[in-house]
Amino acid sequence: MIKAAIIGAAGYTGGELLRLLIHHPQVKVTCAVSTSQAGKAVTALHQDLTGETEIVFQDKLNGHVDVLFLCMGHGNSKAYLEAYPPLEKTKIIDLSQDFRATEVYGLPELNKQQIQAAQFVANPGCFATAIQLALLPLAYNGMLKEVHVSGITGSTGAGMSPTETTHFSWRSNNTSTYKAFEHQHLAEVHQSLLQYQNWFDQPINFIPYRGNFTRGILITAYQYCEWRLSEAVQVFKEYYEEHPFTYVVDHPLDVKQVVNTNKCLIHLEMHNGYLMVQAAIDNLLKGASGQAVQNMNLMFGLVETEGLLLKGSRF
Amino acid sequence: MIKAAIIGAAGYTGGELLRLLIHHPQVKVTCAVSTSQAGKAVTALHQDLTGETEIVFQDKLNGHVDVLFLCMGHGNSKAYLEAYPPLEKTKIIDLSQDFRATEVYGLPELNKQQIQAAQFVANPGCFATAIQLALLPLAYNGMLKEVHVSGITGSTGAGMSPTETTHFSWRSNNTSTYKAFEHQHLAEVHQSLLQYQNWFDQPINFIPYRGNFTRGILITAYQYCEWRLSEAVQVFKEYYEEHPFTYVVDHPLDVKQVVNTNKCLIHLEMHNGYLMVQAAIDNLLKGASGQAVQNMNLMFGLVETEGLLLKGSRF
Amino acid sequence: MIKAAIIGAAGYTGGELLRLLIHHPQVKVTCAVSTSQAGKAVTALHQDLTGETEIVFQDKLNGHVDVLFLCMGHGNSKAYLEAYPPLEKTKIIDLSQDFRATEVYGLPELNKQQIQAAQFVANPGCFATAIQLALLPLAYNGMLKEVHVSGITGSTGAGMSPTETTHFSWRSNNTSTYKAFEHQHLAEVHQSLLQYQNWFDQPINFIPYRGNFTRGILITAYQYCEWRLSEAVQVFKEYYEEHPFTYVVDHPLDVKQVVNTNKCLIHLEMHNGYLMVQAAIDNLLKGASGQAVQNMNLMFGLVETEGLLLKGSRF
Amino acid sequence: MIKAAIIGAAGYTGGELLRLLIHHPQVKVTCAVSTSQAGKAVTALHQDLTGETEIVFQDKLNGHVDVLFLCMGHGNSKAYLEAYPPLEKTKIIDLSQDFRATEVYGLPELNKQQIQAAQFVANPGCFATAIQLALLPLAYNGMLKEVHVSGITGSTGAGMSPTETTHFSWRSNNTSTYKAFEHQHLAEVHQSLLQYQNWFDQPINFIPYRGNFTRGILITAYQYCEWRLSEAVQVFKEYYEEHPFTYVVDHPLDVKQVVNTNKCLIHLEMHNGYLMVQAAIDNLLKGASGQAVQNMNLMFGLVETEGLLLKGSRF
Repeated sequence: MIKAAIIGAAGYTGGELLRLLIHHPQVKVTCAVSTSQAGKAVTALHQDLTGETEIVFQDKLNGHVDVLFLCMGHGNSKAYLEAYPPLEKTKIIDLSQDFRATEVYGLPELNKQQIQAAQFVANPGCFATAIQLALLPLAYNGMLKEVHVSGITGSTGAGMSPTETTHFSWRSNNTSTYKAFEHQHLAEVHQSLLQYQNWFDQPINFIPYRGNFTRGILITAYQYCEWRLSEAVQVFKEYYEEHPFTYVVDHPLDVKQVVNTNKCLIHLEMHNGYLMVQAAIDNLLKGASGQAVQNMNLMFGLVETEGLLLKGSRF
Repeated sequence: MIKAAIIGAAGYTGGELLRLLIHHPQVKVTCAVSTSQAGKAVTALHQDLTGETEIVFQDKLNGHVDVLFLCMGHGNSKAYLEAYPPLEKTKIIDLSQDFRATEVYGLPELNKQQIQAAQFVANPGCFATAIQLALLPLAYNGMLKEVHVSGITGSTGAGMSPTETTHFSWRSNNTSTYKAFEHQHLAEVHQSLLQYQNWFDQPINFIPYRGNFTRGILITAYQYCEWRLSEAVQVFKEYYEEHPFTYVVDHPLDVKQVVNTNKCLIHLEMHNGYLMVQAAIDNLLKGASGQAVQNMNLMFGLVETEGLLLKGSRF
Repeated sequence: MIKAAIIGAAGYTGGELLRLLIHHPQVKVTCAVSTSQAGKAVTALHQDLTGETEIVFQDKLNGHVDVLFLCMGHGNSKAYLEAYPPLEKTKIIDLSQDFRATEVYGLPELNKQQIQAAQFVANPGCFATAIQLALLPLAYNGMLKEVHVSGITGSTGAGMSPTETTHFSWRSNNTSTYKAFEHQHLAEVHQSLLQYQNWFDQPINFIPYRGNFTRGILITAYQYCEWRLSEAVQVFKEYYEEHPFTYVVDHPLDVKQVVNTNKCLIHLEMHNGYLMVQAAIDNLLKGASGQAVQNMNLMFGLVETEGLLLKGSRF
Repeated sequence: MIKAAIIGAAGYTGGELLRLLIHHPQVKVTCAVSTSQAGKAVTALHQDLTGETEIVFQDKLNGHVDVLFLCMGHGNSKAYLEAYPPLEKTKIIDLSQDFRATEVYGLPELNKQQIQAAQFVANPGCFATAIQLALLPLAYNGMLKEVHVSGITGSTGAGMSPTETTHFSWRSNNTSTYKAFEHQHLAEVHQSLLQYQNWFDQPINFIPYRGNFTRGILITAYQYCEWRLSEAVQVFKEYYEEHPFTYVVDHPLDVKQVVNTNKCLIHLEMHNGYLMVQAAIDNLLKGASGQAVQNMNLMFGLVETEGLLLKGSRF
């Protein structure tokens, strides 16, 4: 059994990791660290886990583990690793953005082999995952041009700390945009696209909307493209052929087609010379903790889908 | 024009008062006090009021007013009035629970004449309003017995300060109960019912649910009753005949029948010897700021419905 | 008093017209036609109107009126007017898209004078209203270029007839796009923009999202623009100076800033050479019935805002 | 492998069964019948299942199966079994209410041994499951008295066919009651309680609310009870000791503690002589398809939790 620890196990992504790893047949969670909840049973906070685990939050790592998941806020992973340098043989999967520019970038649809060999993986951002999965086959074929993207995200993407825009009375029956053209995930998106198409120097114009729902991301991208639709579909299907969670589908997308799964569904249309590519993911799974487990599976030589064949929540 | 000031004008009830009073033909809001927002334009916070007012939040009352609305948290009204004793001729309408046991209780369907003569009115709580309007005709006729009440409230009833249970990611698609059998509004409900039926010594068993919506309250009460349904309906209709906001209706209730109005709709059924009475209100209007304006109208000798014939938000 | 009739008074837009006109000081609704509800009290269907009206649905127009509102599905207005030709002096406001290409187009911010003189006004579509209000000042100044638009609409835009995507279990906590690049409102948008900038021959690329809420529209448009932000803001403010419902604001938009009002709020930002313009409206008010009343006010020489100074529903 | 067929596989409960059985290690779904969808890929309708199954909807059962799940509307199971009498050795699990009074009633917490021996199991109703799990330990100890129950259910309980009260524009941000005191599930609840306490002749007063969410049920029951709270908790814990999905917990309940799981959480409080018992389930899982799989596990001698250790959807 792989011994796993989660640092920051009280938040959304830490909690989702617990939900996934508790049922993972090859993993034993030996330590769940939360400085704010230390001493409390995990089920006292994550009350849906009643009956599934007896572990108690710790204030710090309490023994050797094979893999360490870092689920703290952005900026804190770096500080944590400096304060508590892990053993060399401990593999690390960091869910913050601290190391996305410097370590192996954990998008299996882009870097599977590097991930398999890595000791340290920087897990991608949620919007970044969806946008990249919509654009990678274009970059792979050198077809990327200026691209226009809009997208909607669930509230869990904003984390557990209360803010004006995550207050129920504000967000219920509401929508708004934020960080238009300047979303922090655009940096990692660019970096990945350049990996394939290194002369790409166009903007990715991105309008992110706050959705009036808790889980899920839907993005819509379009750019000029000389391909016919059937060619584009073919290229995308080939690109994702070997990847067990990402599917190109004919039917229109909606977010609940992927909620509570680790899938990414992709749908293409052609309009007035524009190729439109949509992608839907669960922001907490394929956009965070599910992808982290997928990366762990790859890093430890397990079947990529192990522990990730989840019952969705279509309704 | 009646000069009005609102102390605590940045919160939900203060904001609703501004929305109502700005359109009230007999009132001019001369002062909106918010210590946290002082110096800011009212429209910078209550952004839906753009184009409707030029006033700026003050840090304290800045001149004589005819009526003072207190919209601070429970416990703060008393402290405020001690620190800033108002002029004797200033009428006061307090939306907290601080004075509900000691001053004229501002439920027009119970105390219209006392309100008309009052200098100080304690505005009822939201659940308290709904429960009383469902039970008053029974008490008036000395028919009250042990009663079982369940009810659901919108999130705005919990105020603007963020809490775990008002976080969107928690409350969306969720429900729970709170303060079962011990809701603080039961005290004022009892007090009012005893006004009519002073030998009433039975419990009011109340299960309040947190609703997954922002505005509105629906309560369902039942008790044994010897009346036939038609008698009960007749009694209720007679009781509310003179009251312009409270209606006994034949059709089943849902909360959006009253959202964004100052109405209370009441519906009766008879089952197995139990008389079931339901009441629906908007918790921020008939349950708070709308009723406060209704009280103001009565205190100043205006038409009771002035400024309160609102377009509802059925969908 | 202006005598008004509503044909199709059982639907969302017909119902909203009733809610508005019942409180309009210059109007008396003398006839509410619904073939499916004929004989039923209006309050039996629109139950929130309890206490506000005694009128009964008719199966056809039952006498002379000064103004006729047509609130039937698209295609039915034409058929209705052929079957029941109105008197010449009756003014007509049609909420369908049947006459938007041929009659006076009822967007006051574009055609106020023509509306004031018109006997027949074709009321704009909801998305069309929001997009035009975001783009008209650009076209007016001949600055329109290829433009990229995304937007989210509430479910009431899809009407009352049940469909898969308006089923609660489907739409709750969900989002999806529809009619990308091909929304039927783009025709009337183009037509209006050409009225100002007749050489405009670029596409308006539009991605409409189905929102997980009932009321409201938020759209985000962007295009290259040589103006500095302050110039653009100045131009937009000047354009809307004389229009009492449309405001250019500094703060970020969210839909509930306009819900249950007839306002349009507009917000501008500049990013990487792109001018971004956002517009928020209530799809049933400024996007339908509220604008219809605004047009009626203009057609009858009333104050433009009469009956439309509504209490919003911010929370 | 157990061969399973689902009759009525296009609806909510049929779809959930597919989601569960596809991942069940001991089961192969060999036939999914839907007369309306026959010939269509299952993934074309249940689009979240993309990549998980290749099967196609059939218009009728196409070969021998070991277990048959009937997921049609109430009344249709009886008709189906008359028209298509299954082989004697085929086990049947019926999710309708057609046989709840006559066949083995499939509530494992009540009838585990009978279920293990049964060829035909009538799966309980969703509200019925929650209410029984809240009351069974009382009946088991002969302590049941007149009981007062309120409860809220998600919209999926109302099925897939559109109705006024499942239209998004109606139900969003709304609540209402239905079938107060007369819910059809009360018959099976009474029947089960009498199995333990056959002299029980008191009413179960039940107020069901329509919740503004898709999945989940929370019920609150109370009755006079001489026990101290600690005794009651002890009794309940003992009663459920051997049952792997039902837990008595100390913390307050909310519905999302059980959504997308097969669990029932139970919470007890004592107030003014009343014992209050709350129960939370997912109406489509423990209240329908999950319990059906649990019954199948018991009928085939499998581990009771096989295929039912699901990742919940807490947020």
